[in-house]
Amino acid sequence: MKRTERACIITQVLTEHPNRDFSLGFFAEKFGCAKSSTSEDLTLVRTAMDSAGLGYVETTSGSKGGVRFVPYITKEESIAGLEKIKAVLEDPSRNVGGGYIYTTDILFDPEMCQICAMQFAKHFAASEADIVVTIETRGIGVAMLTARLLNIPLVVIRREARVSEGSTISINYYSGSSDRVQKMSLAKRAIKPGSKAIIIDDFMRKGGTLKGIEDMLSEFDTKAVGFGAVIVTQGVKDKKIGNFFPIIILTDTEDGYRVAINPDII
Amino acid sequence: MKRTERACIITQVLTEHPNRDFSLGFFAEKFGCAKSSTSEDLTLVRTAMDSAGLGYVETTSGSKGGVRFVPYITKEESIAGLEKIKAVLEDPSRNVGGGYIYTTDILFDPEMCQICAMQFAKHFAASEADIVVTIETRGIGVAMLTARLLNIPLVVIRREARVSEGSTISINYYSGSSDRVQKMSLAKRAIKPGSKAIIIDDFMRKGGTLKGIEDMLSEFDTKAVGFGAVIVTQGVKDKKIGNFFPIIILTDTEDGYRVAINPDII
Repeated sequence: MKRTERACIITQVLTEHPNRDFSLGFFAEKFGCAKSSTSEDLTLVRTAMDSAGLGYVETTSGSKGGVRFVPYITKEESIAGLEKIKAVLEDPSRNVGGGYIYTTDILFDPEMCQICAMQFAKHFAASEADIVVTIETRGIGVAMLTARLLNIPLVVIRREARVSEGSTISINYYSGSSDRVQKMSLAKRAIKPGSKAIIIDDFMRKGGTLKGIEDMLSEFDTKAVGFGAVIVTQGVKDKKIGNFFPIIILTDTEDGYRVAINPDII
Repeated sequence: MKRTERACIITQVLTEHPNRDFSLGFFAEKFGCAKSSTSEDLTLVRTAMDSAGLGYVETTSGSKGGVRFVPYITKEESIAGLEKIKAVLEDPSRNVGGGYIYTTDILFDPEMCQICAMQFAKHFAASEADIVVTIETRGIGVAMLTARLLNIPLVVIRREARVSEGSTISINYYSGSSDRVQKMSLAKRAIKPGSKAIIIDDFMRKGGTLKGIEDMLSEFDTKAVGFGAVIVTQGVKDKKIGNFFPIIILTDTEDGYRVAINPDII
């Protein structure tokens, strides 16, 4: 097999399995060639990914030497994708009344979800989180793709406990989005105590739900190391959490709302 | 830029965006080279993907010539992944009583979800579906990854209508898993009439929920062209839908349950 062919195969496997560790031996065996040769192949792949800004091929040397791929998104693709989401959200027919905007289709569109997941994965890359946590339902798509990019499990908090979950822990919290006390519930076995979690939600107004999730996690001896929300409303004072990462920022105006992309991203 | 480098970049972009159309011009412009040269790069990528069984690089020639990548999973990786899911499910501590098995962590584990999504994407590759449809909550992870692989939107049916969904259509149906009549609800604007849908759920006993979703879709003038369920119980007679694709098959035994992989897959 030619070097180019091997480099393409390595690129495909690494891209398909972001942030997963592969040993040099894995590829050497696959290609029936020496580890030194595989190592040279990897150098080629790394150079290519670097030059295109598509990701970082992290290698560790030595007998246990291995490789993992940390995916990036180019600024160009990021901006194009976020501008598309912005334009879709700006469509006035999305205003369904009562201050609500229809966002469900965006939140389950794989292309738009992936753009958002890439932002979260990049922002929380150094968080050393063990899990991504979200609460049903609309944040699950983005949270799942984020978990996939970071190669860590997703934990989904339910509104109501289900029999198939075994024993659960439940808490009540105040949700600003729905202006009422709500319940959340999670199986006792869902999180290993001592974990570190990134909390992702689709929408944040005052941050009550994210704060509720943080409180719930403390019952599992688990620390929230990052908060991300796809859409955050600006102009609501006293957010209940201090440090959060939004992708889209909504501002209420006299005749509707204004959509902006988080200026830290672009 | 060297040919190998270009081939790696093309491989990364195609893998990252399964089933998306790219024009030859897109890559030619990216690399600042002729379309004929890009076309030769693509031949290299196609050969590499073919020889490793990782996917099919579909090209169309002519002035509007383009390329799309149809991802495969190797039989080896498929079997290893499904055997892992089987082993995890066989852990007797998952039996939470009352005939229920704890599966939530598996259904939100990105690696295990991706293995399942790959099976659905492969099985339904020729279905010409426009959308993937699921019902909250536990099937959303696998359904999202399947939608991403097929590059079509995901539609998530809710249990209860939400104000942020605008006008909705609701139906009642009998669910065998919970042995009661349940409700499902979907925003009127969620599906374009005349669509074709693949219906994915996490668990199927008699198929009441999948049949309910099919009935719901008929309200949207939308046809179900495929049914997939991650886990299906065997031995339950008179399934309510005829043709479904399971990944894991559970059989009740005197002292618990037996786990098997759908023999059509391996």
